[in-house]
Parts: sequence; C-alpha cells; structure tokens
Amino acid sequence: MKKLITLLLIVIFMATPAMAEKKIRWKLAMTWPSGLTPLTSPPAKLAKMVDDMTNGNFIIVVDGEESHKSALGILDMVEEGVYEMGHSASYYWKGKDVTTTIFTTVPFGMTAAEQNSWLYYGGGMELMQECYNQFNVYAFPGGNTGVQMGGWFRKEITSLKDLQGLKMRIPGLAGEVFARLGVSIANIPAGELYTLLDRGTIDALEWVGPGMDIRMGFHKVAPYYYTGWHEPASDLQFLINKQQYDNLPKEYQAILKAAMKAVSADMYAENFYDSAEAWAKMKKDYPGIQVKSFPEEVLKRMKEETEKVLDGYADQNPFFKRVLTSQQEFMNKAREWTTISDYYYIETSAAIQ
Amino acid sequence: MKKLITLLLIVIFMATPAMAEKKIRWKLAMTWPSGLTPLTSPPAKLAKMVDDMTNGNFIIVVDGEESHKSALGILDMVEEGVYEMGHSASYYWKGKDVTTTIFTTVPFGMTAAEQNSWLYYGGGMELMQECYNQFNVYAFPGGNTGVQMGGWFRKEITSLKDLQGLKMRIPGLAGEVFARLGVSIANIPAGELYTLLDRGTIDALEWVGPGMDIRMGFHKVAPYYYTGWHEPASDLQFLINKQQYDNLPKEYQAILKAAMKAVSADMYAENFYDSAEAWAKMKKDYPGIQVKSFPEEVLKRMKEETEKVLDGYADQNPFFKRVLTSQQEFMNKAREWTTISDYYYIETSAAIQ
Repeated sequence: MKKLITLLLIVIFMATPAMAEKKIRWKLAMTWPSGLTPLTSPPAKLAKMVDDMTNGNFIIVVDGEESHKSALGILDMVEEGVYEMGHSASYYWKGKDVTTTIFTTVPFGMTAAEQNSWLYYGGGMELMQECYNQFNVYAFPGGNTGVQMGGWFRKEITSLKDLQGLKMRIPGLAGEVFARLGVSIANIPAGELYTLLDRGTIDALEWVGPGMDIRMGFHKVAPYYYTGWHEPASDLQFLINKQQYDNLPKEYQAILKAAMKAVSADMYAENFYDSAEAWAKMKKDYPGIQVKSFPEEVLKRMKEETEKVLDGYADQNPFFKRVLTSQQEFMNKAREWTTISDYYYIETSAAIQ
Repeated sequence: MKKLITLLLIVIFMATPAMAEKKIRWKLAMTWPSGLTPLTSPPAKLAKMVDDMTNGNFIIVVDGEESHKSALGILDMVEEGVYEMGHSASYYWKGKDVTTTIFTTVPFGMTAAEQNSWLYYGGGMELMQECYNQFNVYAFPGGNTGVQMGGWFRKEITSLKDLQGLKMRIPGLAGEVFARLGVSIANIPAGELYTLLDRGTIDALEWVGPGMDIRMGFHKVAPYYYTGWHEPASDLQFLINKQQYDNLPKEYQAILKAAMKAVSADMYAENFYDSAEAWAKMKKDYPGIQVKSFPEEVLKRMKEETEKVLDGYADQNPFFKRVLTSQQEFMNKAREWTTISDYYYIETSAAIQ
C-alpha cells in the first residue's frame, strides 16, 4: 500500500510537465473575409502550426469577416476580450490614434526589407508595443505585402494637369494626398469597383498588386498600371489580448511568437510568388497593359503633400513624431544599403541583358 | 486498494500526453565559429526557441567550428548521425554533388525575395529535398545574406584589361569566372587577408557585405567597393539526420519546422540591419570609399563565363539541369515583378530626392 502511494506520487510528479498541455481554445478575428489569400494566410497558417506544435492542445479558431461582420472592429474586440486574438492592418485605427497608421506603411517610406529590419532590430517593435499598450493588446508583425502598385488608370497621367478632376478610388493617406492634387476621391465598395471602372464612372483605382488585382479584373478595362509610391511595404498585425496572452503557459507564448514570425515571413513570399505569376499571366493575356511611373512633377508634389500631412501630425503628437523620426533615421541608412545591394544588382543585371 | 489502483490508472492515462514531453537532447554542428553573427544566429536562436517552446524538454546544443574542427564536414557528420543536425551552406558540397551548389545562390541569379518565393512556393524546397535524399538528411532553408558585395579592390577596374594578372581572393564559382577573365585566384586563410591586402600581396578580395566586412577592416586599405553579381542571395541550410527527425514526436517536428522558418527570416533582417549600420559607419569614418559597379564589358564577360560553366554542368547532369531550369523559369517572371515593384519604387523615390 505504501509502495503504491509512492508510485502514485511518482506518476503524479512525472505527469506535472503535462500542465503545459492544458487544453486551450482561442478565437481569432480577422478583418478579411475567409479565403482572401494572401491576407488570410498568416492567421490560417498560424492556427495550423500552433495546433501541430501542441498536438492539438492549443486550438485557434479563425473567424473571417463573414462571421463576425466587423472588419474594422478587430482592435475593439481583442481589447475587450471578445476575441483573444486578431489579424488586421494598423492603419485602420487612425480614428483612435493616428500613430497606429505609420506601423502599416508610409508613402515614400521603407521597403519590406527595410521595415522588417527596423521592426525586428531597429526598435520598431518596441515602439509599436508602446503605441498599443493603451489598447490592452500586444501587437506583432503579421505579414507584409511588399510594394503595392500605384493603381489602374484608364488614361495615361502625363502631368499634374491630368489629375485635375480625375475620379479615383484610393483610401487613406494616399487618397488625402491625391485630393490635395485635385483628384476627386470616391469611396466605393469592392464589389462595385470593376463595373464603375469599366463604365468610366471612375477613372482610376488602387488595389494591391498583381497577385490580388488579377482576381478583380481591372487590367481588362484600365490599361495603365502605375508603379507604387504610397504603400511601399504594408505590414499587417497580429493583436493579442494582454491578459489572455499573459495567462498562457510560457511554452505556448513561445510557440505563438515563433509561429507569428514564421507566417509573417511566409506571407511576403506567398504574395511575391502570386504577383510574379499573376503579372506574367496578365501581360500575356492583355499585352496592351502599360506599366508607367508617375511623372516627376507629380511625384514631387505627392511627396511634398505627404510630408505636410506627416509633419502636421508630428507637430501635434510627440509620440507620432518619435516613431516617424525613428523610421526616417533608419530609412536614411537602410536606403543607402538597399541602393548599393539590391538596386545596383538589378540595374547591372538588366544592363547586360 | 482497488480505488487506489483505479486512481493510479487514471493518473497514468492523464499523463500519457506528456509522452511528447520526452526529454530530447540533440547536437547541432555549424560550419561557423561560435559568435560569427549573423551566420551563427539561426542555429543559436533556433536552440533558444525550441527550448522555450518545449519548456526545456527538447534541448539542442550548438557546436561551433572551434569544437568539432570540421567546418566542411557538417554534411558527413549529420549523414552519419554524429550530429543530429547541422547548419552550413549548400555550396560546400560541390565535391559530392554539383547540384548542391545552386541551392545556395547562382551568379546573376535570384535575389533573396525571389529565391524565398521559389523555395517556399515555386517548388524549390521539394527539389532541394530530392537533392539531399542521397545524403540521408532533410534540408531546410536556414537564413539568407541577401546580395553580397563584389569585393574590395585597391585600384579601380575600368576595363577587362585591368583584370589581367590581378591577384584576388574569391572562392567558388565566382573565382572560376574571374580566373577565366585573367585574374589570378589566391586561396588565403581569413586571418591573413587584411595584412596581405594592406601590403598589396593581393589586389582585391571578396568577403560578404558591410555588416561582416567592417570587422575585417578591408575598407581601411582598399577603397573601391564593388557592387554584387556573384552571390545575389546566399542561402544557408539546416540539415537534419532523417532517422533522428522521423523519430521525433510529431509536435517536435512541427516545432522545429516553425523555428527554422522564423530564424531564417530573422537572419535576413539581422544582416540587413547590420549592413545598413556598418555601411553608414564606414562611409562616415572613411569618406574616401567609392562604390563602383563593374564596367559593362566586364559584367558581360562574367555573365558569359557563368553561363558556360552552368551549361557545362547542366549538359552532364540532368538533375542539375532540372533545378537550374526551374530557377531560371521562375526568375524570369519574378524579375519582372521585382522591377515594377521594388526597383521602380527605389528609382522614382531617388529621382525626386
């Protein structure tokens, strides 16, 4: 009997590491409708990875916009603990705190490689967390689209004059900048965009890049595809309710962090792959598509107006200024490196083609 | 008594999920001496992550070159199971199978973004595994340096003539190509490079990029820093003994895979950050440094010779040909996308500075 009790105690002792295998079931709300790859890939792959890594003990159920019906309510729902976790883009919280916007991307700002270096090594993640503390959430990078294209235009833009009265769908800061250049900004639901562009009700629109644009069909009705300036590296975020995260066993916290990092990098590769393939297909099927960059006089004015808007926020908001300054100081160094590495490599390779 | 036995059985039953928390202790051998960041960062961070994710149950002890004394024996040691895991660069196994080399990088080949897309989405990892099956190991991407610089030169290279009789340290395929252009290739241990370059015993050498080069001090004695052509995206690999991996609990396999993916992406960000900072410092401290690209006639000949070497291998080796073709076909599409996205973005941003 005594022996048996000792044995029982030993078995109980041996079993204690299994504490960490506590069954946990979380819900994650994403801004996107389910299936809208590559935006939905980080949460979908995260859930699968975490399941596999914990032998099914830590389950994350991913809800798309079609089930929670609150694409722009992700931050609120995670803050309140309705969802333990969310996946969205920081610039949707401009109304709550304008500083959130520049953790997504900045017009004429950093590329994905530059931004990842800043986030992971240049103090960016610490600043992002400082910003999100007020919402009771932890924020982590959640995937990057890379350079987004400047949009599809029915007519070529050869000067500032061509922008006067142009009707365009382009949201956010880029829309603000275009408005200052005389463009009439239209706010149109995604489902109507193709028809309105086809009919000429709008003259232009911005979406993402070839990988996502091809499904919308814009290239069939607006042959001028402009290169990007306004979203050089749009970053998505995972948001996690602080108490829920803090209550996790330490191993599950580590598992979540590793998975978030892995799926973030993966989304960039997926979107790059999709875009390379989609662009090849578009060009083949619609050889009339012309890639254009905005004329210098247009780009210069875009940049001036961008700086005015950013400086305006920085003047009013010391934390915005701190984040913007941190980004700009790193970017100045990073761009030199991008230029002598990737840029000259592409340039010299093209020169001898 | 019966009750107690039942209780014991229940406890034993409850304890069974803890099977996965089996104590596992692996050893990982890396080609690099400990502390040589960022090359050593993926294995060091992997070990820490896996430890954290398993609550200390899966320990990976990382051995640097200084302890196993076999920098180029990593593949053999993992194949034989002396080490369960390794971290190295695929092109070190040229003597065993020439196809391994092109999983590191190819002169005038893909950039890091292009290569990651190919590896993770374009069938690259499957081809890499097909190649490594013969060695009884699983191979996974293990970090990427991005574009490596073309090297430090004491004198400017203005024509093909300037290469005649030039003494240079540059290993691998790039060395082969330079030799065909009249360069005399020297094989010199790392520790002697600075002195020999300073004395003019050699005229030029290639190392990595600013982040790693700055510690060697070459910029103090050779002011011409050439842009890259030969290693546009050198990928490192994790190698794992197949039986050891297959014997792991499924959760640990998943943990290892997530960690490898996370630390691979992280190394690129680390090296990018280090290079941006080091380049800013070098330029400030040594304003005489001049960044140059090789003249077009030199680049053209480099490319011709590269193609001859690659085509030579492809003619003899059908699998080499399959891998090279897969890379080239994807690269043709990917480069178009790189050009209209990142390249034009950098170009238009610079034009309005």
